[in-house]
Amino acid sequence: MTAQATGVAEEADAVLAGVRAEVRRRRPGGAGEGSARELLEPLGLPFVAAEVVDSAEEAVAAARRSGFPVVLKAVSDAVLHKSDAGLVELGLGSAEAVREAHHRLAGRIAAAGATDARVLVQPMVGAGTDLILGWVRDPAFGPVLVVGLGGVTVELFRDVARRIAPVTATEAHDLLRSLTCWPLLAGFRGAPPVDTAEFCELVARVGELASAVPELTELDLNPVRISAEGRCTVLDARAVIERTAEAPSRQSAFDLGALARPGCVAVVGASRDARRPGGRVLEALREHGFAGHVHPVNPAGGEIGGLPAVASLAELDHVPDLVCVALPAEPSVEVVGECARRGVPAVIVYASGFGETGAVGKELDTRLLAEVAGSGTIVCGPNTIGVVSSHHRMAATFSQAVRGLPLHASGTCLVAQSGAVAGSLVSRELADGYGIGDWVTVGNQSQVDVADYVEYYAGLETTRSVALFLEGVPDGGRFRRALAAARDRGVPVAVFKTGVTEAGSRAVSSHSGALAGSGEAYRAALAQEGAVQVAEMTNLLEIAWTLGHTPLPAGRRVAVVTTSGGAGSATVDLVDAAGLVPAVFDERTRSRLAEVLPGFANVDNPLDVTAEGAFGEGVVRRAVELVVADEGVDLVCLVLTSITGADAVRVARQIAEAAAGSGKPVLVSWLVARSLAKDGMSLLAERGLRVFTEPARMVAAAAALTSCLASTHPRSACV
Amino acid sequence: MTAQATGVAEEADAVLAGVRAEVRRRRPGGAGEGSARELLEPLGLPFVAAEVVDSAEEAVAAARRSGFPVVLKAVSDAVLHKSDAGLVELGLGSAEAVREAHHRLAGRIAAAGATDARVLVQPMVGAGTDLILGWVRDPAFGPVLVVGLGGVTVELFRDVARRIAPVTATEAHDLLRSLTCWPLLAGFRGAPPVDTAEFCELVARVGELASAVPELTELDLNPVRISAEGRCTVLDARAVIERTAEAPSRQSAFDLGALARPGCVAVVGASRDARRPGGRVLEALREHGFAGHVHPVNPAGGEIGGLPAVASLAELDHVPDLVCVALPAEPSVEVVGECARRGVPAVIVYASGFGETGAVGKELDTRLLAEVAGSGTIVCGPNTIGVVSSHHRMAATFSQAVRGLPLHASGTCLVAQSGAVAGSLVSRELADGYGIGDWVTVGNQSQVDVADYVEYYAGLETTRSVALFLEGVPDGGRFRRALAAARDRGVPVAVFKTGVTEAGSRAVSSHSGALAGSGEAYRAALAQEGAVQVAEMTNLLEIAWTLGHTPLPAGRRVAVVTTSGGAGSATVDLVDAAGLVPAVFDERTRSRLAEVLPGFANVDNPLDVTAEGAFGEGVVRRAVELVVADEGVDLVCLVLTSITGADAVRVARQIAEAAAGSGKPVLVSWLVARSLAKDGMSLLAERGLRVFTEPARMVAAAAALTSCLASTHPRSACV
Repeated sequence: MTAQATGVAEEADAVLAGVRAEVRRRRPGGAGEGSARELLEPLGLPFVAAEVVDSAEEAVAAARRSGFPVVLKAVSDAVLHKSDAGLVELGLGSAEAVREAHHRLAGRIAAAGATDARVLVQPMVGAGTDLILGWVRDPAFGPVLVVGLGGVTVELFRDVARRIAPVTATEAHDLLRSLTCWPLLAGFRGAPPVDTAEFCELVARVGELASAVPELTELDLNPVRISAEGRCTVLDARAVIERTAEAPSRQSAFDLGALARPGCVAVVGASRDARRPGGRVLEALREHGFAGHVHPVNPAGGEIGGLPAVASLAELDHVPDLVCVALPAEPSVEVVGECARRGVPAVIVYASGFGETGAVGKELDTRLLAEVAGSGTIVCGPNTIGVVSSHHRMAATFSQAVRGLPLHASGTCLVAQSGAVAGSLVSRELADGYGIGDWVTVGNQSQVDVADYVEYYAGLETTRSVALFLEGVPDGGRFRRALAAARDRGVPVAVFKTGVTEAGSRAVSSHSGALAGSGEAYRAALAQEGAVQVAEMTNLLEIAWTLGHTPLPAGRRVAVVTTSGGAGSATVDLVDAAGLVPAVFDERTRSRLAEVLPGFANVDNPLDVTAEGAFGEGVVRRAVELVVADEGVDLVCLVLTSITGADAVRVARQIAEAAAGSGKPVLVSWLVARSLAKDGMSLLAERGLRVFTEPARMVAAAAALTSCLASTHPRSACV
Repeated sequence: MTAQATGVAEEADAVLAGVRAEVRRRRPGGAGEGSARELLEPLGLPFVAAEVVDSAEEAVAAARRSGFPVVLKAVSDAVLHKSDAGLVELGLGSAEAVREAHHRLAGRIAAAGATDARVLVQPMVGAGTDLILGWVRDPAFGPVLVVGLGGVTVELFRDVARRIAPVTATEAHDLLRSLTCWPLLAGFRGAPPVDTAEFCELVARVGELASAVPELTELDLNPVRISAEGRCTVLDARAVIERTAEAPSRQSAFDLGALARPGCVAVVGASRDARRPGGRVLEALREHGFAGHVHPVNPAGGEIGGLPAVASLAELDHVPDLVCVALPAEPSVEVVGECARRGVPAVIVYASGFGETGAVGKELDTRLLAEVAGSGTIVCGPNTIGVVSSHHRMAATFSQAVRGLPLHASGTCLVAQSGAVAGSLVSRELADGYGIGDWVTVGNQSQVDVADYVEYYAGLETTRSVALFLEGVPDGGRFRRALAAARDRGVPVAVFKTGVTEAGSRAVSSHSGALAGSGEAYRAALAQEGAVQVAEMTNLLEIAWTLGHTPLPAGRRVAVVTTSGGAGSATVDLVDAAGLVPAVFDERTRSRLAEVLPGFANVDNPLDVTAEGAFGEGVVRRAVELVVADEGVDLVCLVLTSITGADAVRVARQIAEAAAGSGKPVLVSWLVARSLAKDGMSLLAERGLRVFTEPARMVAAAAALTSCLASTHPRSACV
């Protein structure tokens, strides 16, 4: 940076610091247009000119100075929505009109009891497109900028885009382009395009303000009118001031090696009773052939599950890498203290009854953290169902979901805030032959949090994708850095987020507040860090597996190959609705397909080989080969119907052979009951092709794959 | 009707007939504002005043008569989008401004080569809400009325509602209320509500016009400005005239008794080779224990599949109720002719190669129809996989989908335009223990069409719901009458419709045309007749089964009971997003739940009994009983996670016991791999409770159930 540039930057920082100092001097609460203008004045934002007047005659004089027609507004911190209260008088074309309007406003001010009200005279601003620019501060992620179609109807149509501050002007432009109303600016119905540079710069500056003044928890500039020439004028503003304490974001990550890949595990509370958690954990460790040492710990000693038990950790002649604490909450805290003192690197605390249950539990949480403070011991949980690794053949869990299904490794890693859901989803992956790599339930994340797990597991050689069942994170900044670390390693992250619809209980006083709830903040954060948000719970592991085990497509052009015309056209509907593009086959592909499928009227996309056609020798292989080879096809989606039994295996083999080495993703949905085509489906799983039960789920996975391309459209990462 | 009212109605009809006569005199093509006004003039619609002028001075004189400011427009049938072409000059406040505008318009008219152009002078109309009112004619359903937020951005925001004409003023009001922009009229931000009576009457009159003048294939009144007092002014109009031939709607229905419940079936083309259709049909008939007579027909005679074959139908000493023709296309036509001559009541033609393949096939279709004309013989197909009835233990099909799975009757009847998809979906219902009643694949519906099947099967005592996999119908009116007949019998119809997204290839010249494609016409027709449109293909039979076998809820208040907090909150998200209402438990329920679930902090909705809690004796039964009994709960959605093996059976039994006789719908989603909880899931199926694999699919079914309530919101029937 040059000395001059540094000077400019320092000056800008000083201005922001000045604004912050002024904000801190103000009383918390809503700030109407008058106060907001005053606060933001040092920034030189392009507010419409305004003159404060104290009488009808002053208003007339001001109107003459600015030129008719004018607007009269009464501004008050007690009335944030002026239009609703009748405190805005538009289009006053004469002195008489101004006088009458002033008189009406005076009456309404008195009626509203707005003792702080002042009357402003503003010129009418020429035509343009009205946008909203503002933010609301999210507890985890900080200021969520909102850009959208403005005016009083903004909450009705909700045509807004969001991004967590700061944003660059280029990113602001991407936000604008993602709006439904973008065509209004891009050259609507023959008009020349509007130059949005000034607006995008304004977004960037407002983003800096949002980051620099945490006490401004909400701001609306609404409308910002952008003229045909691209000039911006802020016509109205409001803000909310709060006393906030910013929680610092933790920079360091925990090393989870001893938790994920322990050589020696002790189970405290090990039991012979397989219905008790300690019994189940021990049994799970043994069932899946954990190769390391396992030490049951039980005051009664003796032998448990065929292993010699020790009465306490003290009796072990070495320090285990991982201690699984399968005891109630209170005694668990004591054992964790003992672990910390002995230098155990990792502990899992299964017990519930901690912070999730209220005040008494929170006290236990505090004690737990105190026990490990400064010790180097990491704690998974409490209130977790545990940690499993197929790579390490370790199931340190009491979950029923992995009982009876052999572990089978894949590159998918699951980090979950719901152990019950996680176990169920894993059981499906195992039952369908896709497998799972590592999975952990984070529990209350009292110490190690979601971000630590994501960052650590994404860094392992065995991990090809991460699936995240997410409720919420304590530290948004840290979470974003973890997602960025995964992205930088080329490890895609698929996320199912609960709590996406707002309960709407939070009182909000700005438009931005109403438009950017917590679910939206997560959505923005995930999109910004390139994570893929998944719409259906049970689609999470399917999509994560697909992202980790399927070639990335070069584009969005999808070919649909099917044994049913009806299913094919329905799937093209889905492709279109997902923002993907139905591929157009080239002439050579079409003529060759016509040779393979003689007598078929159509060799178009969707390509219907028909169930009868699929019985022909090599027909499916040849058809898929030709479609995959077409340069206009980036991705192939197959929809199979009632191909069953030995036919299922034959057709599956042909598909696998045609897809192998093509470098293009081939996804399959197979509609018939699994029991009728099980061997065919298993063959596809073994050959690394994903089978979906429903075309809509397959297309969601296809959309997820394409969203991993360099995306210019922030909405595309939501499937 | 009084003589006077009759007179008024006759007069109105005469006016409409006059408009039609005038439309038929015009050249087909687009009609701009000028022509559209002329055509519609006899109706007395509230068009803004307008004066045609031939010079700038005439324009000034007209402006003085109407009062400044005025609008100048150049209207031409060659330029339907005047604004885009710069042919509208707004807000002209002085004689000079009018002269200059006239000059500019003259230049642009010349530039556009619009030789028919005329210049209109209109007064500026006061503020109001701009709506669009129009229609586009659908080939199957006729005029689809479009009502929505108007102006030039209408295609951008697409805030429109649709209904097939005619509509009453009350129905028009429902359309308005379903719009996103409805709050603008309902009393926006403190303003008094707008009286929409005049607009709704206008919608009804425009609907009459649409029905009366089929040659007007598209009409836009856009905008129709509705003032704060509810006065409507039509500011612009355009229309499209075509020469159309209206296909008459068939009033009569076919009696399908011999097809659905035959006593005696002959299979022509019966074969010993189970890979050939004739072999498969015979085998399927025998496998499922058809109790009637089956006669293989094969020129070689002998015994086929253990049955004595005849060489031809002529050799039979009686007329079979149903003849299954498993031959190629050409010989099939001949056999159909023979059947017609012999008085066979019903024939199934499996062969493809008819109308679906092009000109030669269409010729075969014509011959087929000629063979049965006037004979009383009904034809299922051609190009069908056949007809199955679990009630009648008859599988007259060559589908692989029912091989190896015993037929199991339910009240669900499936009518499908895709045999391949139908077979697959049925196989799932059989594999999961829910069963299927009748199912038919309609094939090319050359004679008997979708509507006939829906109406006939909905009329059977065995049918409790109809599932329809729909591509398209030849006769929209007949289809609507069939849906209405089902509705009037209280038989819900669930529909999966392919082709819902527009290819967009059709050239459209009006806004209404762009806003109401064929998919939208079906959506409107289904909603109008109370059918439930299903979003996912594989959700179709699940939802149909649920509609037919579950009590209807009294309202929309949903309780979520779960073994996983994470899954519970995600499901409440879904409930909210589906327009259902999360129930609030009453105090008594809460305190009793607290006794059943001691130590749980929350006894709220969603109710998390936890996986551990579910292992407690009778906990799930008691919890579900209490929730079901709460008067604030209309419907219960359970989400189970990793409850497996014997626990699965125990928990399933408790749920079934708690739900039994409650009269309230209880739906279950169970996330664990089916193989781990198979017996529990089967128990629920046996007890009449539906198990879904994904909460989103369960909530879609819940929404479908509530949409069968008396619905005031036309969108609610889409899940």
